[in-house]
Amino acid sequence: MRRADQQGDPPIFDSAFRDRLANLVAWRRDVRRFKPDPVPPALIEDLIRTAALAPSVGNSQPWRFVSVETTATRDTVIANFNVCNAAALASYEGKRAALYAGLKLSGLREAPVHLAVFCDHATEAGAGLGRKTMPEALDYSVVAAIHTFWLCARAENLGVGWVSILDPREVCRALDVPCNWKLIAYLCVGFPLEEHLDPELERHHWQAHLTENERLHRR
Amino acid sequence: MRRADQQGDPPIFDSAFRDRLANLVAWRRDVRRFKPDPVPPALIEDLIRTAALAPSVGNSQPWRFVSVETTATRDTVIANFNVCNAAALASYEGKRAALYAGLKLSGLREAPVHLAVFCDHATEAGAGLGRKTMPEALDYSVVAAIHTFWLCARAENLGVGWVSILDPREVCRALDVPCNWKLIAYLCVGFPLEEHLDPELERHHWQAHLTENERLHRR
Repeated sequence: MRRADQQGDPPIFDSAFRDRLANLVAWRRDVRRFKPDPVPPALIEDLIRTAALAPSVGNSQPWRFVSVETTATRDTVIANFNVCNAAALASYEGKRAALYAGLKLSGLREAPVHLAVFCDHATEAGAGLGRKTMPEALDYSVVAAIHTFWLCARAENLGVGWVSILDPREVCRALDVPCNWKLIAYLCVGFPLEEHLDPELERHHWQAHLTENERLHRR
Repeated sequence: MRRADQQGDPPIFDSAFRDRLANLVAWRRDVRRFKPDPVPPALIEDLIRTAALAPSVGNSQPWRFVSVETTATRDTVIANFNVCNAAALASYEGKRAALYAGLKLSGLREAPVHLAVFCDHATEAGAGLGRKTMPEALDYSVVAAIHTFWLCARAENLGVGWVSILDPREVCRALDVPCNWKLIAYLCVGFPLEEHLDPELERHHWQAHLTENERLHRR
């Protein structure tokens, strides 16, 4: 993705763009099935530059992106996923356990790109603005960057999957990051093997879409 | 924004769309200066339906959107902002304090729409999937919905501002929401009075853009 011009008039967005954006949101998906095709490294770097335009509390820009590249480190992360996933499976019973066991919950083995995304709790950027009563806004800023990355990656016809079945302390240790970096997400990135309009967990009967949560409450 | 077709082939995104999406990300902004023009209520409802297509851990869809409409409740929120903002100002000294005092940090008075966005910690949707080792992923799902709302609102030429200078307990009390709902964001929404490519906090010399945070670390 190219950077927007740093000059010029504000863009006016039209209904044709809105329709395509709605399509992007609807077809985004959490992808766990990847083609082996490599992703051009410059494309990932471009996407991170775009993600760094996300909103952040006090303009603190606390996102830290780590590309996990060595086989040894990836294997440590995969082993950790396997332990955490087995423990999660053991917490379910009966039909739920059988359903859980049949789900594909990560593409860690197949994804050509692994990205760990952290929040730097030691950053002085932003001078604490907006963080006194809701300090968690710092972590939320990183989520906004991740979601920007995700949508822009999808517009490049890439797929992204967010893996949260990991022990964050173990991931921090395996990746040898500064102790003040908090793991927010571990992302698998690559070209998707399949395209779907419905989420994997809906298609496999784990959890349906809930229209009641689209409701606007009023006070 | 219209819903994407629930049928049909997956969209193929082209470079013209990517350029406009990059423009959307670049010109998004946290808006604090609004025109008094009302926002059509159906537009807000459409945007929330689109936001509800955001990724959520275990497909838990834990977002709860509350439109704050009565003058009395808005006044309570504004009074709380004023208290929190005065306390924040008192924590700075010298030049930083003078700079902080000159910033416009919310459009609570002017915004025609106030939206409080919560995470329902009591939800059973998703059956706990993906939340055992990183339970905070539930809150992050709500941030993804908020950021989807924000970008799609901008594509409707609306402005959104995220206010975090609030005591979340006081907001929950004022809005009389269930005790398991956690405040994630308080949003001001309306048509922007001005358009800018640079963030307000950059333009007013609080915090510059940090290109070093666009760097991809490698492991």
